[in-house]
Amino acid sequence: MRIFIAGVDGYLGWSLAQHLAMRGHVVAGADSLFRRDWVEEMGSWSATPICTIEERLVAFRERYNAHLQFWPGDLRDYNFVANIFREFKPDSIVHLGECPSAPYSMIDVHHSVFVQTNNITTTFNLLYAMRDICPQAHLVKLGTMGEYGTPDVDIPEGFFEIEYRGRRAKLPFPRLAGSWYHWSKVHGSNNIMFACKIWGLRASDIMQGVVFGTRIDGMERDRRLLTRVDFDQAFGTAINRFCCQAVIGHPLTPFGKGLQRRGFLPLRDSMQCLTLAIENPAHEGEYRIFNQFQDVFDITQLALKVQKVASNLGLPVQIGHLENPRYESEDHYYKADHQRLFDLGYTPTHSIETEIKIMLEDLLPFRERILKKQDSLIPDIRWNGQKSKASFLRVATSSAA
Amino acid sequence: MRIFIAGVDGYLGWSLAQHLAMRGHVVAGADSLFRRDWVEEMGSWSATPICTIEERLVAFRERYNAHLQFWPGDLRDYNFVANIFREFKPDSIVHLGECPSAPYSMIDVHHSVFVQTNNITTTFNLLYAMRDICPQAHLVKLGTMGEYGTPDVDIPEGFFEIEYRGRRAKLPFPRLAGSWYHWSKVHGSNNIMFACKIWGLRASDIMQGVVFGTRIDGMERDRRLLTRVDFDQAFGTAINRFCCQAVIGHPLTPFGKGLQRRGFLPLRDSMQCLTLAIENPAHEGEYRIFNQFQDVFDITQLALKVQKVASNLGLPVQIGHLENPRYESEDHYYKADHQRLFDLGYTPTHSIETEIKIMLEDLLPFRERILKKQDSLIPDIRWNGQKSKASFLRVATSSAA
Repeated sequence: MRIFIAGVDGYLGWSLAQHLAMRGHVVAGADSLFRRDWVEEMGSWSATPICTIEERLVAFRERYNAHLQFWPGDLRDYNFVANIFREFKPDSIVHLGECPSAPYSMIDVHHSVFVQTNNITTTFNLLYAMRDICPQAHLVKLGTMGEYGTPDVDIPEGFFEIEYRGRRAKLPFPRLAGSWYHWSKVHGSNNIMFACKIWGLRASDIMQGVVFGTRIDGMERDRRLLTRVDFDQAFGTAINRFCCQAVIGHPLTPFGKGLQRRGFLPLRDSMQCLTLAIENPAHEGEYRIFNQFQDVFDITQLALKVQKVASNLGLPVQIGHLENPRYESEDHYYKADHQRLFDLGYTPTHSIETEIKIMLEDLLPFRERILKKQDSLIPDIRWNGQKSKASFLRVATSSAA
Repeated sequence: MRIFIAGVDGYLGWSLAQHLAMRGHVVAGADSLFRRDWVEEMGSWSATPICTIEERLVAFRERYNAHLQFWPGDLRDYNFVANIFREFKPDSIVHLGECPSAPYSMIDVHHSVFVQTNNITTTFNLLYAMRDICPQAHLVKLGTMGEYGTPDVDIPEGFFEIEYRGRRAKLPFPRLAGSWYHWSKVHGSNNIMFACKIWGLRASDIMQGVVFGTRIDGMERDRRLLTRVDFDQAFGTAINRFCCQAVIGHPLTPFGKGLQRRGFLPLRDSMQCLTLAIENPAHEGEYRIFNQFQDVFDITQLALKVQKVASNLGLPVQIGHLENPRYESEDHYYKADHQRLFDLGYTPTHSIETEIKIMLEDLLPFRERILKKQDSLIPDIRWNGQKSKASFLRVATSSAA
C-alpha cells in the first residue's frame, strides 16, 4: 500500500514509518518539525539523541533499502496537503500531525487556541484533500482514550446503544475529556464522523491509551533510526517519564493519590495495532472507532513495577507523590472495551515488565542527557492557571490493584 | 447589571442591546462587523436597510437615553477582549460573536476552517478573560438546537441520566450536528463545560431553535434602530426567508420533502429568554443548558402558514420544493424538552401567525431591496461539495402536522 504519514518526525510517526517499510509498504510523510520546538520550549529534549530529519532519511534508505519521500511543511496550509496527495496518491493516510500534549494546551490562552485550532485545521485539510483528490483512501486518525475521560459507567468502543424514555438508538458515547488537548481530539473525532457521513469517506479513529517504550525492533542497529523519547512535563508520559527518572535515581512521581486508572500500550504494539487498522481499511462511508490499549493499570501500580524492575537492574529508586497539577479524579471506576483490535488479530508482544526492562537498558546510555534536563521532569503547568512547581506530598504509596 | 454583548452589531446582538437597555441594564458591546461582509460575500444584504454602527450608536442614545459603549475589533485577539473586560467590568457576558451560518461553513475548506477556528478562538478568549479578570461574571453563550441533530430518541436539556450495563451516570447527551458550523457550536459547548469544571466559571449555554422575526417592540419608531433581516441562502433562516419570498411573490422554498422538524422562536421571545438567563445567573462552577424554542413545526407547515397569512394580506404565493442541498433526514422523529426557561417564567408573546403578519407588514416597504438580491434566495452551496443552484422538484406539498 501507499501510506502517507502526517507527522512522520514524531515519536509514533518515525516508528511507524520504519515498521511499515519493514512490512513492504511504500511510505511517505510530512512534518513541520514543530515537536522539536515544543519540547525545547519546555526546556527539554529527547532522552534519546535524535538526529536531523535529513540524517534520518539517509539512515532510513540505508537500513530499509527504500526511499521515504518527505515534504517539510505545515499541514495547516491546505495547498501543501493537496499537492502532496496529488503527487503521492496515498491509499492510506495516517494522521499523527497534531499537537499531542495535555499540559502544553493548558499553559495559557495562546497555547489553548494554538493546540485546538492547529489540530482542527490539520484534520480539515486532510479530510478535504481526501474528498477532492483520493476519496477512496482510508484515514487512520490518532485519537486518545482520554476523549472519554472517566465516566462512572463502562466505556464502549465509540458508540453505544441505549434505551431512553422507551425508544432505542445507537449514538456516539458521551465524551468527558480532561484538557484542552483532549477536547481537541473530541472535536476532531466529531468532524471526522461527520465527513464520513456526508462525503462517504473511510476512517478509523484510534482511541489510543498511553503509549510507552523506547523502540521497535530494528532501531537498535543504527542510532540514527532511534525515535524520540520525551520525559519533560508536557510531552513525557507516565511510564516513559518513570523510566527516565529511574535511570537517574530521581523519585518516580505519581500525581496525587496516584490511583488514576488508564489503558497502556507498548510502542511496538501501537505499531502493530495501527498496522492492523491500515491493512484492514474501513468501508466506504464507514467511521469506526478502536479503543487501542493492552492493559489497564493505576499510576502507582506502574511506578511500583518500574521501581521493581529498576531495582533488579541495580537502580534503586524511591516513589514520591507530587501535588496533582491537573483537575482529575484520583480514584475512580474504569472499565473500557478493547476487543475490536484483538478481533483483527492483535497479539501483545511482551509483558509490561519485559518492556520496562528493555526501556531501562535502552535509556541507561543516555543518563547524562536526562540529568541535564531533569528540571523539566517536575510540572509547573497547572490546570487552574497557576504556574508554580508541584511539591512532594506526604502520601503513603499504595495501589488499588 | 453590567452586560457585555460580543457580536452586538448582529441580528440578535443589536436587538438584545435595545431590549436590555429598556430594562435598565448598562449595556456595552464589541463587534468586528464581519457579518456585514459575509452577507455581501453571499451577494446579498439585509432586507431591512441597516445603518452604520456609528449611526446606530447615536440613535441608541437618543431613544434609550443611555450610552452603548462600543469597541470595534476582532474577538480573536485576546488582548482586545481582556482590555474591554478590565475597563467595563461586566457582570454578564453574552457571546453572540460567532459566525452563525451552516451553509457558509460548508462552502470550501477555507470557510470550514474559518468558521470553526473563529468560533473556538472567540470563545476561548472570553473564557480566559473571565477567568483572569472577572471570574464571578456569568457567560450566556448562544448554542443551537442543531447541536443535537435529529436522534431517534427524545432530546433532554443537555444532560441525561442513563443506565448502561448495570451502572448509572449522568452524562452529556450525545450530539449529532449537521454542518461544520453546528459542530463548531458543539466544540464550544464542550469547551465551556470544561472551563466551568476546572475554573469554577458560571455559564448558561442556550440551545436555541430557529429564530424568526423582523423586530422587537420599540424598533419601529426609528428606522436607525432596525435590526438586520437576512434572506440569502447562508444567513437567512426558514421563516425569515419565506416571508421575504412572500413579499416579492417568489415561491416559498422548503428543501426536499420539507418534513424536517425543528424548534422555532420569535425574535422577541428570544430576547425574553436570553434576558431570563442573564437575570437569573448560573451558580459558581455551574454549566447549565437551556433548550430555547417555543414550538416544533415541520418546514412545510411553516411554508403553509406563511402562504395563508400572506394570502390574507393580498399577497398570493406558491410553494415550490427545492432539491435539498444539505445532507439531512427529511422525515424523522423529533421530540425535545424545553421546560427550563418556562420554569424561569418564559411566556410566549404571540401566536406564530400573528408574528408572521407583523413580519410581512414590516417587510413590504423593503420589497425592492429583496427583489434586487433575489438571486441569493436559491442555494448553490451543497453539503456534498458540488456548487450548482438547486432546482425545483415535482413534490406534492404536504405537512405531517
